[in-house]
Amino acid sequence: MERKIELHESHPRYLSLLAREKLVTGFKRGIVASEGLIAHGRGECFDYLLGERTIQSSRDAINVASAALLLANYPIISINGNVTALCVDQICRLNRSLENSAVEINLFYYTKEREKLISEEFKKYGLTRLFGIDPNNLESIPELESNRRLVDRDGISKADVVFVPLEDGDRTIALKRLNKKVITVDLNPLSRTALTSDITIVDNIVRVIPQLIERVEFHRKHSSEADLNDLLESFDNLDGLKKALEVMKSKQVPLQ
Amino acid sequence: MERKIELHESHPRYLSLLAREKLVTGFKRGIVASEGLIAHGRGECFDYLLGERTIQSSRDAINVASAALLLANYPIISINGNVTALCVDQICRLNRSLENSAVEINLFYYTKEREKLISEEFKKYGLTRLFGIDPNNLESIPELESNRRLVDRDGISKADVVFVPLEDGDRTIALKRLNKKVITVDLNPLSRTALTSDITIVDNIVRVIPQLIERVEFHRKHSSEADLNDLLESFDNLDGLKKALEVMKSKQVPLQ
Repeated sequence: MERKIELHESHPRYLSLLAREKLVTGFKRGIVASEGLIAHGRGECFDYLLGERTIQSSRDAINVASAALLLANYPIISINGNVTALCVDQICRLNRSLENSAVEINLFYYTKEREKLISEEFKKYGLTRLFGIDPNNLESIPELESNRRLVDRDGISKADVVFVPLEDGDRTIALKRLNKKVITVDLNPLSRTALTSDITIVDNIVRVIPQLIERVEFHRKHSSEADLNDLLESFDNLDGLKKALEVMKSKQVPLQ
Repeated sequence: MERKIELHESHPRYLSLLAREKLVTGFKRGIVASEGLIAHGRGECFDYLLGERTIQSSRDAINVASAALLLANYPIISINGNVTALCVDQICRLNRSLENSAVEINLFYYTKEREKLISEEFKKYGLTRLFGIDPNNLESIPELESNRRLVDRDGISKADVVFVPLEDGDRTIALKRLNKKVITVDLNPLSRTALTSDITIVDNIVRVIPQLIERVEFHRKHSSEADLNDLLESFDNLDGLKKALEVMKSKQVPLQ
């Protein structure tokens, strides 16, 4: 007899607990690796320090990321188990909004079974073509030792812009070596992924993707290519990371 | 394909990795909820910022906590899955040291099976009476919506001091409303539990309990009731939280 945990919207940390529940459901279904649960816990810690909200510098980074994605010839969204568990629906929506993009799967803790489950999950949300699963189409990224040294010949290999939310540092560095423009979502402003990417959104992915879609749709209607290029050129990623770190460090114990 | 990891005591993060291994073992045995793994990951991150050591303000909080426990008429130690996995042995030792205390189980993610496994685990370490498991003896805490609204009529309900390490904010607030003196262990100095408790020990529970036992045994031998009351009265919990947060903020991480 399982007493079902009831999450109430009145709980001050409702959204955070809901995300935790999504991760756990994903874990039980085999989509999330156990290491993914711990990584999510680390993210929760940074999100707490951030105030569990989208700060202004992250809003700016989301805006610039939408410009980079719209300007790209061939943008790829790279996904893993945690991304799938947290926002498979929103990732599919973003992919449809972009029109010329594609989705590629890359698992740090790879098993054929997890790959299959994740692939099926994306199919449920209408994605018919997922790169990164056909062994005959994979090629190695030089100098990268983890499982994710492989990229799809018709996916990331050809892409000019790669969106890699919740990514490992080694892989981000390898993508930069391949001269990709890299956009990431990372709650730790000091991670190697955050420091190496061209555009780092220091925020919780469940808050990011809906805002990113909104920005993509806004700029598609209202902005010229020149506007978008201006946005990109005026962006300073390190400055955004410093601002996020400042917010975390300015956290005060509230007087009761 | 399982990779066996060998832990060496020489590893700079040996104790942290050992605790993680205990959690994972507890999880595999059904003692720890998957949500408990995530919560532990969050704790690891705060512990890392703390320097994975007991800072002076936490040492002070441990000292005051031992005084509060010794002065109590009927102190209860409230335990959950993570506490069990990390330090069932030490909790039983603390309970024996206190002499007039008892242990009560309270699970945020409750299943009858987990309750049974945890109860058996405590029995292994010599605890014959665990409160919180007899449905006929449970009563509700008013205004608390989570599963842990229940307390034992002969346990927490009667207690003057409640020690609730790794506790949820809602429940801590509810215990305060019942006019209990609340002592907690929480690595996040900004959590609602940390802010609401009377005595918050910002430290890793695996480091805390042995020191708490040492302090209980020291004060029982060397301190008068007046000494202990002085200790309690001079304690400022908010000041301790501020000091812990300052330590975390002063953590330097090199930018690239």
